[in-house]
Amino acid sequence: MAKLTPRNEDYSKWYNELVTQTGLAENSKVRGCMVIKPYGYAIWEKMQQQLDKMFKETGHQNAYFPLFVPKSLFEAEEKNAEGFAKECAVVTHYRLKNDVENPGKLIVDPEAKLEEELVVRPTSEAIIWSTYKNWIQSYRDLPILINQWANVVRWEMRTRLFLRTAEFLWQEGHTAHANKEEAWDETKKMLDVYAEFVEEFMGIPVIKGTKTPNERFAGAEETLCIEALMQDGKALQAGTSHFLGQNFAKAFDVKFASKEGTLDYVWATSWGVSTRLIGALIMTHSDDNGLVLPPKLAPIQVVIVPIHRNDEQKNAIAEVALKLSNELKQKGISVKFDDDDNVKPGWKFNEYELKGVPLRIAIGPRDLENGQVEMARRDTLEKSFEKLEGLAETIEQKLDEIQENIFNKAKDFRANHTTEVSNFEEFKDVLENKTGFISAYWDGESETEEKIKAETKATIRCIPFSEVDLEGKVDFYSGNPAKFKVLYAKAY
Amino acid sequence: MAKLTPRNEDYSKWYNELVTQTGLAENSKVRGCMVIKPYGYAIWEKMQQQLDKMFKETGHQNAYFPLFVPKSLFEAEEKNAEGFAKECAVVTHYRLKNDVENPGKLIVDPEAKLEEELVVRPTSEAIIWSTYKNWIQSYRDLPILINQWANVVRWEMRTRLFLRTAEFLWQEGHTAHANKEEAWDETKKMLDVYAEFVEEFMGIPVIKGTKTPNERFAGAEETLCIEALMQDGKALQAGTSHFLGQNFAKAFDVKFASKEGTLDYVWATSWGVSTRLIGALIMTHSDDNGLVLPPKLAPIQVVIVPIHRNDEQKNAIAEVALKLSNELKQKGISVKFDDDDNVKPGWKFNEYELKGVPLRIAIGPRDLENGQVEMARRDTLEKSFEKLEGLAETIEQKLDEIQENIFNKAKDFRANHTTEVSNFEEFKDVLENKTGFISAYWDGESETEEKIKAETKATIRCIPFSEVDLEGKVDFYSGNPAKFKVLYAKAY
Repeated sequence: MAKLTPRNEDYSKWYNELVTQTGLAENSKVRGCMVIKPYGYAIWEKMQQQLDKMFKETGHQNAYFPLFVPKSLFEAEEKNAEGFAKECAVVTHYRLKNDVENPGKLIVDPEAKLEEELVVRPTSEAIIWSTYKNWIQSYRDLPILINQWANVVRWEMRTRLFLRTAEFLWQEGHTAHANKEEAWDETKKMLDVYAEFVEEFMGIPVIKGTKTPNERFAGAEETLCIEALMQDGKALQAGTSHFLGQNFAKAFDVKFASKEGTLDYVWATSWGVSTRLIGALIMTHSDDNGLVLPPKLAPIQVVIVPIHRNDEQKNAIAEVALKLSNELKQKGISVKFDDDDNVKPGWKFNEYELKGVPLRIAIGPRDLENGQVEMARRDTLEKSFEKLEGLAETIEQKLDEIQENIFNKAKDFRANHTTEVSNFEEFKDVLENKTGFISAYWDGESETEEKIKAETKATIRCIPFSEVDLEGKVDFYSGNPAKFKVLYAKAY
Repeated sequence: MAKLTPRNEDYSKWYNELVTQTGLAENSKVRGCMVIKPYGYAIWEKMQQQLDKMFKETGHQNAYFPLFVPKSLFEAEEKNAEGFAKECAVVTHYRLKNDVENPGKLIVDPEAKLEEELVVRPTSEAIIWSTYKNWIQSYRDLPILINQWANVVRWEMRTRLFLRTAEFLWQEGHTAHANKEEAWDETKKMLDVYAEFVEEFMGIPVIKGTKTPNERFAGAEETLCIEALMQDGKALQAGTSHFLGQNFAKAFDVKFASKEGTLDYVWATSWGVSTRLIGALIMTHSDDNGLVLPPKLAPIQVVIVPIHRNDEQKNAIAEVALKLSNELKQKGISVKFDDDDNVKPGWKFNEYELKGVPLRIAIGPRDLENGQVEMARRDTLEKSFEKLEGLAETIEQKLDEIQENIFNKAKDFRANHTTEVSNFEEFKDVLENKTGFISAYWDGESETEEKIKAETKATIRCIPFSEVDLEGKVDFYSGNPAKFKVLYAKAY
């Protein structure tokens, strides 16, 4: 196992080495598509389980819609189509045939050309709203609260494992409502669900806010988002919830008979988070020794490593370790007892540190005599001796502490990397030296935002939800009267 | 709600009406692709959960591989490529652009043609084995025991909801082993897992056996299968487990250093079941009144319908119903208390019968006085009065009974529809009048099998695993000495 490149030397290299060396994911032979390896997928499964539970608790059901969107449906909602047309995979044929000139090779069969091209879904509004049309006649058919777990494809030119891949896994909620208020409530409710999940389970503090028109989802009237800050001072959009207004209902002619007897267009929302969140998880907590995983999402929460010189010691330790394992399992804590004799304890210590296992328990013969074990915390790298008696409870408590600690650490980092600026010199200085979020007044003009982006690559990540007194405030760049107080940052 | 076409009038029509009227699935606007609606997807989720648990208990981990297979990888294993080339969706471009001649319309951008076409995976051996190549150097890297939950696409010309769709959901296991024996053990083990799942959870009896070369998976050395019999006397392949030998290892040059120091090709298996199983579930148990679901997979296992004339009655019943609901939930039984006043109890009875809810509890004021409820079983349509005291236990027991009963019923049906024949006249007579499985001797010649298929549409479903004395037995069609005793049937 090679040592990781330190973060302060080359953050991007550190990230790639970490993802591949820990067995989370790797690039595939398909341009821009990744293989999510078992350890990475196990984290995704834990995320899915929790999110799915939260979606169901808020009244949603899962369903599945086709992978393909016929071109004519895709182009129906103009802005959505425009936003995704430039980066979509297009199926044009439905058969390969033998290449007579190259035996053993296949070519596209020109006779199997589709009458209408199919777009591999970059997002499913079009296919879903063309389906909802048949499901909705009256207000009694509303609301429709559906979520889908699926793969989507966006032909990104510059890709990075988890953060930006041509194919990625996500969930996409698509809801239909009888009125604007209800759709808005849903949009906000799902943003809250995302914020709760990301903070409480992933241990990543987020800022809730609204996207500017420039950063809005193609086809949405408003996009709400949660924004997180990575350790290199760049922001990452961790989830979005879109108020779609009646755009898709109008595009697909979805009307319903209201209680009052009128025929109205349906109101819509959509919301999603993806495997990109795994990238955020890595970049928020991990260090130069490897992954740091929040206990609530760690595939292995506790590893027990025995240290022995002979079979007698081995058996005595195994007995204690297995008893402890069973106690932990009964508490719903996932534990691995690694009694593989082919590798040394030191190698195992490194391996589980790299893999971010929150707690490591080492047990040697001396420990048994003293009725204790050695416990190492992955987050602080602290070691301590803990009594065997009541150890399962100690571990349970320690896991909670770790979960809380990594969240607080990330929150402190964000606080230390959020700067108020009042002029462009300060703005550029922060971007270059301190990095992080920049809180500043904005005149509400896309032009201002675009000029700043062109000069600095920083964009408005969101307009946070908090109430702000704008009296007498001016845009730090244009000098125009301020309309919002916003957060700028360079972003993934 | 229209009445269903009876099975004996038009089985195929009955099936389509049932699937759509119960809200399981519907056809989409994409040729051959279906929308799996919430009720259908809820069944699939229960199936997934149980299968996933069984895969993990047998040592497998989940991972995720790309949706696309570059054409050059696809064609690497010749038989596999040949088997799927004729029905695969091909991505040739990665961008659409505005059609200058038709404002608002999009066309494929000829400048965004891929250098190499991408096949949408019809199955993932090719992409996975091209990945395993980098994961396997020595025997220490083996076995690899991986499963993937994914969508796949096969461009079928004649499609039917669940049974045969262009896109379907499935799981595909792909394992790599150091020797033949281990790979064979895995192939058989996973067939056993499928058989156990389909029989114990879906309540569908299956025959385990081997496919003939004609029916083998493209690229496999042997295909094992479980075969089920539907109510119309047609067979359905419910799951397959393939021994792939070293075919894919050779195609992708995957070798490993053995313990003995030799460099050998890796041995492989793959195995899968799909949303097709939902079709089997429907066709095995359901009747002219609608779905009949096995309790272990029913999204709603018990529905409680209150019957009242005034608010006082309503409140008294609700109190009892909610207490019962809580007791059932604590036992892990999913229950719905349907107290919607907008529809009449009779309508609800029909609705839940159609949807196959295993147990229906009706509670009226008179019942409360008598300390009882009315219970209706979906499988037998029997009604009984059951004491309120200990009702949760009664229900638990009744659900087990239903699970057992529908399995036994299907087993009896199969026994009554399995016929031994010794000549071709009998064979044709059974196919036309009695239908079902036909047990007969086969000479082992593909030609014989093909001739019979051409004349009757019946195929060899499998060579069952049982020991058979072939002494003096002859093929019923060719008169040649028998090599196997097999099961013929018309099949889905």
